[in-house]
Amino acid sequence: MVDAAASLSTEADDHFHDECGVFGIFGRQDAAAIVTLGLHALQHRGQEAAGIVSYDGSQFHVERHVGLIGDTFTKQSVIDRLQGTRAIGHTRYATTGGAGLRNVQPFFAELSTGGLAVAHNGNITNALTVQRTLQKQGSIFSSTSDTETILHLVATSKERDINSRFIEAIRQLEGAFSLVALTSKKMIGVRDPLGIRPLVLGDLDGSWILASETCALDIIGARFVRDLKPGEMVVVTSKGIESHFPFEPQKSRFCIFEYVYFARPDSSVEGRNVYDIRKNIGAELARESPVEADIVVPVPDSGTPAAIGFSQEAGIPFELGIIRNHYVGRTFISPGDSIRHMGVKLKHNANRRMIEGKRVVLVDDSIVRGTTSQKIVQMVRDAGAKEVHMRIASPPTRASCFYGVDTPEKAKLLASRMSIEEMADFIRVDSLGFLTIDGLYRAVGEAGRNEEQPQFCDACFTDQYPTRLLDHEGADNVRTLSLLATGGQ
Amino acid sequence: MVDAAASLSTEADDHFHDECGVFGIFGRQDAAAIVTLGLHALQHRGQEAAGIVSYDGSQFHVERHVGLIGDTFTKQSVIDRLQGTRAIGHTRYATTGGAGLRNVQPFFAELSTGGLAVAHNGNITNALTVQRTLQKQGSIFSSTSDTETILHLVATSKERDINSRFIEAIRQLEGAFSLVALTSKKMIGVRDPLGIRPLVLGDLDGSWILASETCALDIIGARFVRDLKPGEMVVVTSKGIESHFPFEPQKSRFCIFEYVYFARPDSSVEGRNVYDIRKNIGAELARESPVEADIVVPVPDSGTPAAIGFSQEAGIPFELGIIRNHYVGRTFISPGDSIRHMGVKLKHNANRRMIEGKRVVLVDDSIVRGTTSQKIVQMVRDAGAKEVHMRIASPPTRASCFYGVDTPEKAKLLASRMSIEEMADFIRVDSLGFLTIDGLYRAVGEAGRNEEQPQFCDACFTDQYPTRLLDHEGADNVRTLSLLATGGQ
Amino acid sequence: MVDAAASLSTEADDHFHDECGVFGIFGRQDAAAIVTLGLHALQHRGQEAAGIVSYDGSQFHVERHVGLIGDTFTKQSVIDRLQGTRAIGHTRYATTGGAGLRNVQPFFAELSTGGLAVAHNGNITNALTVQRTLQKQGSIFSSTSDTETILHLVATSKERDINSRFIEAIRQLEGAFSLVALTSKKMIGVRDPLGIRPLVLGDLDGSWILASETCALDIIGARFVRDLKPGEMVVVTSKGIESHFPFEPQKSRFCIFEYVYFARPDSSVEGRNVYDIRKNIGAELARESPVEADIVVPVPDSGTPAAIGFSQEAGIPFELGIIRNHYVGRTFISPGDSIRHMGVKLKHNANRRMIEGKRVVLVDDSIVRGTTSQKIVQMVRDAGAKEVHMRIASPPTRASCFYGVDTPEKAKLLASRMSIEEMADFIRVDSLGFLTIDGLYRAVGEAGRNEEQPQFCDACFTDQYPTRLLDHEGADNVRTLSLLATGGQ
Amino acid sequence: MVDAAASLSTEADDHFHDECGVFGIFGRQDAAAIVTLGLHALQHRGQEAAGIVSYDGSQFHVERHVGLIGDTFTKQSVIDRLQGTRAIGHTRYATTGGAGLRNVQPFFAELSTGGLAVAHNGNITNALTVQRTLQKQGSIFSSTSDTETILHLVATSKERDINSRFIEAIRQLEGAFSLVALTSKKMIGVRDPLGIRPLVLGDLDGSWILASETCALDIIGARFVRDLKPGEMVVVTSKGIESHFPFEPQKSRFCIFEYVYFARPDSSVEGRNVYDIRKNIGAELARESPVEADIVVPVPDSGTPAAIGFSQEAGIPFELGIIRNHYVGRTFISPGDSIRHMGVKLKHNANRRMIEGKRVVLVDDSIVRGTTSQKIVQMVRDAGAKEVHMRIASPPTRASCFYGVDTPEKAKLLASRMSIEEMADFIRVDSLGFLTIDGLYRAVGEAGRNEEQPQFCDACFTDQYPTRLLDHEGADNVRTLSLLATGGQ
Repeated sequence: MVDAAASLSTEADDHFHDECGVFGIFGRQDAAAIVTLGLHALQHRGQEAAGIVSYDGSQFHVERHVGLIGDTFTKQSVIDRLQGTRAIGHTRYATTGGAGLRNVQPFFAELSTGGLAVAHNGNITNALTVQRTLQKQGSIFSSTSDTETILHLVATSKERDINSRFIEAIRQLEGAFSLVALTSKKMIGVRDPLGIRPLVLGDLDGSWILASETCALDIIGARFVRDLKPGEMVVVTSKGIESHFPFEPQKSRFCIFEYVYFARPDSSVEGRNVYDIRKNIGAELARESPVEADIVVPVPDSGTPAAIGFSQEAGIPFELGIIRNHYVGRTFISPGDSIRHMGVKLKHNANRRMIEGKRVVLVDDSIVRGTTSQKIVQMVRDAGAKEVHMRIASPPTRASCFYGVDTPEKAKLLASRMSIEEMADFIRVDSLGFLTIDGLYRAVGEAGRNEEQPQFCDACFTDQYPTRLLDHEGADNVRTLSLLATGGQ
Repeated sequence: MVDAAASLSTEADDHFHDECGVFGIFGRQDAAAIVTLGLHALQHRGQEAAGIVSYDGSQFHVERHVGLIGDTFTKQSVIDRLQGTRAIGHTRYATTGGAGLRNVQPFFAELSTGGLAVAHNGNITNALTVQRTLQKQGSIFSSTSDTETILHLVATSKERDINSRFIEAIRQLEGAFSLVALTSKKMIGVRDPLGIRPLVLGDLDGSWILASETCALDIIGARFVRDLKPGEMVVVTSKGIESHFPFEPQKSRFCIFEYVYFARPDSSVEGRNVYDIRKNIGAELARESPVEADIVVPVPDSGTPAAIGFSQEAGIPFELGIIRNHYVGRTFISPGDSIRHMGVKLKHNANRRMIEGKRVVLVDDSIVRGTTSQKIVQMVRDAGAKEVHMRIASPPTRASCFYGVDTPEKAKLLASRMSIEEMADFIRVDSLGFLTIDGLYRAVGEAGRNEEQPQFCDACFTDQYPTRLLDHEGADNVRTLSLLATGGQ
Repeated sequence: MVDAAASLSTEADDHFHDECGVFGIFGRQDAAAIVTLGLHALQHRGQEAAGIVSYDGSQFHVERHVGLIGDTFTKQSVIDRLQGTRAIGHTRYATTGGAGLRNVQPFFAELSTGGLAVAHNGNITNALTVQRTLQKQGSIFSSTSDTETILHLVATSKERDINSRFIEAIRQLEGAFSLVALTSKKMIGVRDPLGIRPLVLGDLDGSWILASETCALDIIGARFVRDLKPGEMVVVTSKGIESHFPFEPQKSRFCIFEYVYFARPDSSVEGRNVYDIRKNIGAELARESPVEADIVVPVPDSGTPAAIGFSQEAGIPFELGIIRNHYVGRTFISPGDSIRHMGVKLKHNANRRMIEGKRVVLVDDSIVRGTTSQKIVQMVRDAGAKEVHMRIASPPTRASCFYGVDTPEKAKLLASRMSIEEMADFIRVDSLGFLTIDGLYRAVGEAGRNEEQPQFCDACFTDQYPTRLLDHEGADNVRTLSLLATGGQ
Repeated sequence: MVDAAASLSTEADDHFHDECGVFGIFGRQDAAAIVTLGLHALQHRGQEAAGIVSYDGSQFHVERHVGLIGDTFTKQSVIDRLQGTRAIGHTRYATTGGAGLRNVQPFFAELSTGGLAVAHNGNITNALTVQRTLQKQGSIFSSTSDTETILHLVATSKERDINSRFIEAIRQLEGAFSLVALTSKKMIGVRDPLGIRPLVLGDLDGSWILASETCALDIIGARFVRDLKPGEMVVVTSKGIESHFPFEPQKSRFCIFEYVYFARPDSSVEGRNVYDIRKNIGAELARESPVEADIVVPVPDSGTPAAIGFSQEAGIPFELGIIRNHYVGRTFISPGDSIRHMGVKLKHNANRRMIEGKRVVLVDDSIVRGTTSQKIVQMVRDAGAKEVHMRIASPPTRASCFYGVDTPEKAKLLASRMSIEEMADFIRVDSLGFLTIDGLYRAVGEAGRNEEQPQFCDACFTDQYPTRLLDHEGADNVRTLSLLATGGQ
């Protein structure tokens, strides 16, 4: 609709974005209301749409809506329709357009073995290949979501009981998946063999919870029990919880970018507090790339914890030199060149009084395309900064992610086509420093990156993917589209 | 939502309702706009929702909307999205609630053999049975519509070419179905072996058309070619049209109620003009149930042609003694008893001046529950009629229809539990006459009903169904529900 | 938005349209629900928007909505907000675009003397002139409606009691107005001195009703009491009803077109039944313009009563040779010339079987621009009519109406620029007959038109207006626009 | 709708709220788009609704919408309708419910002298009294907004030119008002004689701008010229700008709470940078109420600048011990007690790892009802804080504001009914410190409060109002309601 070049809103969207958050609870009154709260706490993992499926002992109820949890699932009528003491939910980031509600999870189907709902965070990297095989056998897909592929695999399994069918299905999957599923009797949680995406187990007065992050436990005062292990499948029933390990054991490769940007600072992932690690990163950065300066200014809000760490380590005062406007709606339209060339500051404004005449260290979490950094540096210079030194709380991002993260194609990543010096020129700073990959590993508590067997998935920094990428590699990777398509609305 | 007892709108909905109309055109610029016009002419066959699928040479486009064609498909944006020179469409009557857009036809799926869209008028009487078998084999249904069953049968066929797959699929169907289908290369039309629902072939300057009724050809000035034969399957390609007869040949059993009420009076069905037949019915009725009276008054609008026929045969003047208000929206709410007991006349009003002091023959097409007739008779009496004689242009309706018609369960049909005398008492008329079944057959041009081998489907009058009713008879006929359910909207 | 030339919907809108209907009830539980029903029965007098104001003993409640009564005022929430035992309502025809809800009546204002709501049917022909004077004195208008002018006149009156203020206000008005007003103590009804628009008094179990037509009494079973007299002002309070005559007495000049087309056939206006008069008109037409023919066919629905009258007088059978499709939504879009030139028949279809080979008398109520007649005649010819004779149930309409009727400007009226012969050529009929002006007067029960002192307003036929047209005549008649404008929804 | 007790969202709304922001520009292409951006930067001053009026040289255009600027005024269609090179806009906070669009500013009226649009920030404290007088003279109000009163005063003025009429009007006003107005020739800006609300003059390449705060200049790169003086009226025409002082000169009484909370930290008001002052406040607080502690934690986001100031002055590390969730939609519904009593943390979450075992100084800007403070303290304690010391960056708020700020009635203000010790008990902290009134005056650069002649309006802290409060004091202060009311929506 809107020509990107003519709009003003891309300004500060220059981030990788996690695509999903999941949450489930089993055996608790008002289950759907609790899932709503859990998803609200996970809203940073996906803002476009959300869905909840509940089971009331005899019937499943499904609600899926486009919009923020706080706008769509807080209506009494919606919550009232989601009866039952068991429910799972999902919130998702905007991906390739147009598909609308059909791609919103959880997916639900009435199988010959009973109802099954599935939602996941991640990306099945062989979904299209599996889908094509299923289509040849007569399966009809009603969406373009890889989650539906899981449903069809369970539906066409020749195993008898749901556990075995489910295991047969997930063994055919490649890629990253932290999934929750609901049947009339069970809630199931699975983490892929590498444990790329997070999934934690919680407990609310005896009811089991599955959630992407611990902050979703905090919102309702639930107790954190433990992270699911890579490759683990937990099955919750009214009798309790059991744990399965249906995959070949592998070394964990958790996504290190969750620490850098995706996870909420108040979450703890794999035993480490995210805010703490971000402060470590800032301190590490101050040690790796020190600079003489008057103030440390975060690019809010994602650069703030690292900036505090940097400030404390470097002994340079931390100041709010950039103010963020949190009221950002849809794309702003600029009807003419007159406005497009004005350098409008929709989301960030320099606090001139703090900046004027100062040597400023700007701290940001990452650089993706670089266009936002360019604008922010210009804004700080226009506000009278004497020097601008940019420090980035991660290594240069040089490669796309295929594990459930929205990233530009590689060629658009600034670091994939420029050296650090060229980048410094491009964004017009007096100096530019990135954290080293070893510095990042140190900040999360390792001695450094184990080059033989890296402890994390860091493909976006290193271009080394922990799995094969079947759909992506195939010559024939054109997506088949629009299946049981609905129009309207 | 609204307690039926508390609302005012059921007043004149006391009719059987045909559930669907279909329309398709192949090889004509602006195909979807033409389908829109065709469906508009078929709006009397279904007012709740409609859908159109078009194919533009490389892609299928699907639009499905709740509401009248004239409200939903007349938006420029909707039509613009339906590119292509081939399109099929469907309009449907409200059926069992809540399913929303998921049950709106045409259904479309991307099969391994390419895209396939299907829409039909009728009812597959073994759909649930087939569906359960398919589910056991791993098929996932995303609606409760019998049309989706057809798609799955085609999808799971082991045949190679689409014609053979389609034939294998429809041979497994029982019941009534006049269907249109669209693939990337073909438009297909099928009538069930008994030809229960209508389907005609038309031609617009060389482009083939399939439509439920001839009035849909008239609206665009297309030429009527012929009715499809019972059991015929026509396949239209860019090379022309071919005809197949994949079923065992059977005697035709066209729905005789199409003549009584469903079809539009300006349509011709199976070679007979509907208005003409309705006038015949009125004349036949005048002969079978003559009465001394001053004026013949139709219950508008469905009773009008028969009333004209009655008037001409009986030599009693035809007068608009009841005026119909065509502006009827959703259910009127009456907040209190004060209004509910006022006998509000939302849809019909007596024309007092015409009626006062007269002996009135009221002509209506049928009596279903009888409640509307009761109110209308009371209204005519209140307007001062000296006598009220009701004449019904069909035999008593005693049985439900399972062939794509919305009928109350049998126990709610007045004629299933009362004799004609009791009915006359119930609706409080001085005399009540129904057309005999033989009279009806005479009106459509037969000598009478062939009791051995009835020429039409007349099950609603005779309780004799021309097919078995598998789903209905099965003990286990509880519908499995909500499959790939969407919430919202 | 839509280029008229590119759309298909103007086809059968070729009528004058009455702009408004009014309804009020005083002293009855569920007053607003009753007003809703009354307005529903008056929907033919205005379909674009409606409003209701109720008073609950301490507060006024106002609801105004765009759309049909049956769609907007039947929602429980809307009715629930309109508490009270006194209410007035108004329904209006679409007029000059864009003004939206601001121009929807009734208008309500809190004056220093208390709340006052006013709605009227008609047109104040000196409204702009009065408005300009009021603006100079500091009045601020929030709409472009002439009804608001009445409110300001009452607001700025120097009289003390509401009756006197109201009388002072209406004495300054010129033109046509049948109005209803509501204060905290009174319901007021006024007809202009010439009684151009209808207004009747009814009674529902002791509660007084004011309504534009008797059909609005019938729908709720209310008793017709009498027409208000021209120039009469009735004031209903909880003590009863009183009658005032604040104007100089004048001879009545009721709008004769109400009989021809505006009023519903089941209404009685000024003691005459509308259907009856329309049949008289048909009979008169058969006498004035006889023709040898096989069938009499109405252009439905407005031509039907006259066609019945013609048929009975001429002894030629009445047949439904044209079928009307009542499902007409918004403007149909035709994306290309291919469709625009197809002669699409959205609203009417010829019943070929009835028409083929016949000599047809087509009966319609009036000819405005003539384009619809042209299309209908062509359609009847295409259906095979041997001869087509058009008979019009009114004299040629040569002049615009300024009394609350939506008419094209004079130059667009076919009869203003063609003789009857030229018109016959234009619409391509074998013969064309209009009723004479004296024939019309005879049909309504007069001996003929009194040329000295015409008994009715017939300006659209004769170009003789019964009042001066101050705003229209003024050189300075540019409307001042958009006052307390609201945008958007 | 929703029972407050049953909902979860009041949690952190415990603030005074400024009610409005204004913005205008004169003589610049795409004026409305620029106003949109300016209002977006002022969104913190009012989030419920907004309006813009533009003038295109011949016509005024008005758009008013409920919702955030970024959602409503960013649509191409809305901006396209606001043609012209001159425009003013307004954004407002939710106030007393239900009035809907009618109360959204700017107000526009076509007066006898031409079009006039007015919007203001503040509150006219004698509006009702003036309104009643105007009503007695026949003025009709279409809203309950005090802004409409200004329009009526201009409309009924006997002066000839618009400047004089405007001056006559504003001289009758009491209270706080920073207003912008637009006529066909002029843009006018006025600050009330005490200069209670802010209003600044800016310049964008030669086009004059009026705005509530400097941050609205920054967003478009406009130059800050100066604050308007208390009592100043500036008139911008195409020839330039002129300045008038129509009021009796008085000492300035700017709202000191603008510094504490209302204004954006990056704005400069009356020559002082807001962030700077808030840091001063924090430092002052650290001196007035020192405490031994391990970390300083802001209640985000409003407590952050003061917390930084406190941390730097006290030498205690600043840490993000509380994380704020910025995704907050409408009220969350909790269907049962089970959830209501869970202590759900919708908006804030404690960062347990940072807080556990620490002595925490919590810094917040103010305490209104105290309920939020209570919850936050509990949350911090639950996270394991060893001690919790609350420091408030303003004196206790003991009195309501009548100058355009949404405040609870006095009895609901915690400080109006408790001593500081009682408050400390109520919110359960180890110590509680408020800034003194003199400390606040020092932080803004004064030596202290001049008790004879206070330099600011500080009525909310001192109960000393700088103007009389006519409407409020009057015995007869019941608001007359709903004037030219619209329903709909």
